[in-house]
Amino acid sequence: MGAFDEAIAVRPAGDGRYEIQPDERFAIAGAVNGGVLLASVLRAVLDSSPHPYPIATSAHFLRAPRPEPAQVEVEWLKQGKVAATARATLVQGGRPMVETTVTTGALGDPGDVGALSWTGEPPRLPPIGECQDIQDAQGPRAFSGYVKQVDVRLDPATIGWTRGEPSGTPEMRGYFQLREPREPDAYLLALAVDSLPPVVFGIEVVGWSPTVELTWHMRAVPAPGALRVAARCRHVSGGWFDEEAEVWDSTGCLVAQSRQIALVGRPGRP
Amino acid sequence: MGAFDEAIAVRPAGDGRYEIQPDERFAIAGAVNGGVLLASVLRAVLDSSPHPYPIATSAHFLRAPRPEPAQVEVEWLKQGKVAATARATLVQGGRPMVETTVTTGALGDPGDVGALSWTGEPPRLPPIGECQDIQDAQGPRAFSGYVKQVDVRLDPATIGWTRGEPSGTPEMRGYFQLREPREPDAYLLALAVDSLPPVVFGIEVVGWSPTVELTWHMRAVPAPGALRVAARCRHVSGGWFDEEAEVWDSTGCLVAQSRQIALVGRPGRP
Repeated sequence: MGAFDEAIAVRPAGDGRYEIQPDERFAIAGAVNGGVLLASVLRAVLDSSPHPYPIATSAHFLRAPRPEPAQVEVEWLKQGKVAATARATLVQGGRPMVETTVTTGALGDPGDVGALSWTGEPPRLPPIGECQDIQDAQGPRAFSGYVKQVDVRLDPATIGWTRGEPSGTPEMRGYFQLREPREPDAYLLALAVDSLPPVVFGIEVVGWSPTVELTWHMRAVPAPGALRVAARCRHVSGGWFDEEAEVWDSTGCLVAQSRQIALVGRPGRP
Repeated sequence: MGAFDEAIAVRPAGDGRYEIQPDERFAIAGAVNGGVLLASVLRAVLDSSPHPYPIATSAHFLRAPRPEPAQVEVEWLKQGKVAATARATLVQGGRPMVETTVTTGALGDPGDVGALSWTGEPPRLPPIGECQDIQDAQGPRAFSGYVKQVDVRLDPATIGWTRGEPSGTPEMRGYFQLREPREPDAYLLALAVDSLPPVVFGIEVVGWSPTVELTWHMRAVPAPGALRVAARCRHVSGGWFDEEAEVWDSTGCLVAQSRQIALVGRPGRP
């Protein structure tokens, strides 16, 4: 088993409770990446779900769990034929850390003749070979934790900020995969939707920008291969910014969408 | 007090419980409009919130409440200096109907000098006088309930479906206000984000398309006047479609954003 699957493992403890261990290997400055936490929560939810896929996952991030034992508490609110909804709370030391609501369902066959089908324009990215490894892009820093686990290649059009020349547009685009061999699935999509640097870096390199709420939708089962992620922002104001990401698989299928609201970090403290 | 404020009134019943009465005047075919239900939930949440605005509201729609007495149960999970998060459940007959998580906060002054500020392109709509009243657009049907309460004027570019000629693009744009005099605020924004006909009508007029999950963000305090709403879709596949809406106020400020995931209705049963 690879590092990612170890990090998101859950151990059933009865009555909808699951033991988890937020994994230091996926931490950034002591805080375990939110996508990895969501993947653990989804493992617990899918363990008792009547449907196979997390169609809609809403997460409110209350506190940053430490890399110490924690629990996921799952309570089903509805188990219907088409969709089922659970409330799932990541708890540590008796306090809620991440509050999620997850609706699971089936995903019909995208090739189903007669079913309504339509997709918007895919994002335009240069070939992966022309994109820049985020580790190189950020210069000679000591990389550890999360950044060592992921292989993010940024579209050169969105990396001006690494040279102190933000593009002026809050956008990020890049390829995403793990450094270890691990094909995408629902759990990896939970990580992919928030895998790029904050979109506001396209305007100004600000400090740590904590995600307050993130909702993502699984739209199709991803094919093997690197994922393409495109994120944009619509509004930065009053101390908050939104970030919308789309994840497309290697066959050109839109497989996940997300939107988050985050606090603008303090300027000058990247 | 007008019909809308009556419909979203809450009566505190102690221990975080509030009595509400889903209002038939805002029902569509017996089901009270989801936005009106969310506004009631937000009234209950804001009653005990340390912060004034619902920054992020995530709602999973489990069952359609009847126009009979119901309750909102509010539980605070965190009350921080910058943000506070509550779980709020709309319950009827002892069963959860709508499960929401709400993070409240303050909205900094958009004119704050020095604060990071950026906004994307606003939607382009013709003047309101050139838009079509949704009641006229849909032809000589008997309108009652929700549709009688709202004043929706659709951009002619997005109403081909009313003549059996969908534009081919899943988009809707229009002006939104109540028919009664009632200026916009957080509660009316909860209604506005899902006030237009389903975006999929731009491709094919399908049947009732139930919203399964909707998350919306309040981005600024709206100025008086009609709201401009623009909705688009990115992907229709596997029986599901997404709908993203932006709400702009009369001064050209982006005041709310939403995304929902909904089930594609059955074709031929509009």
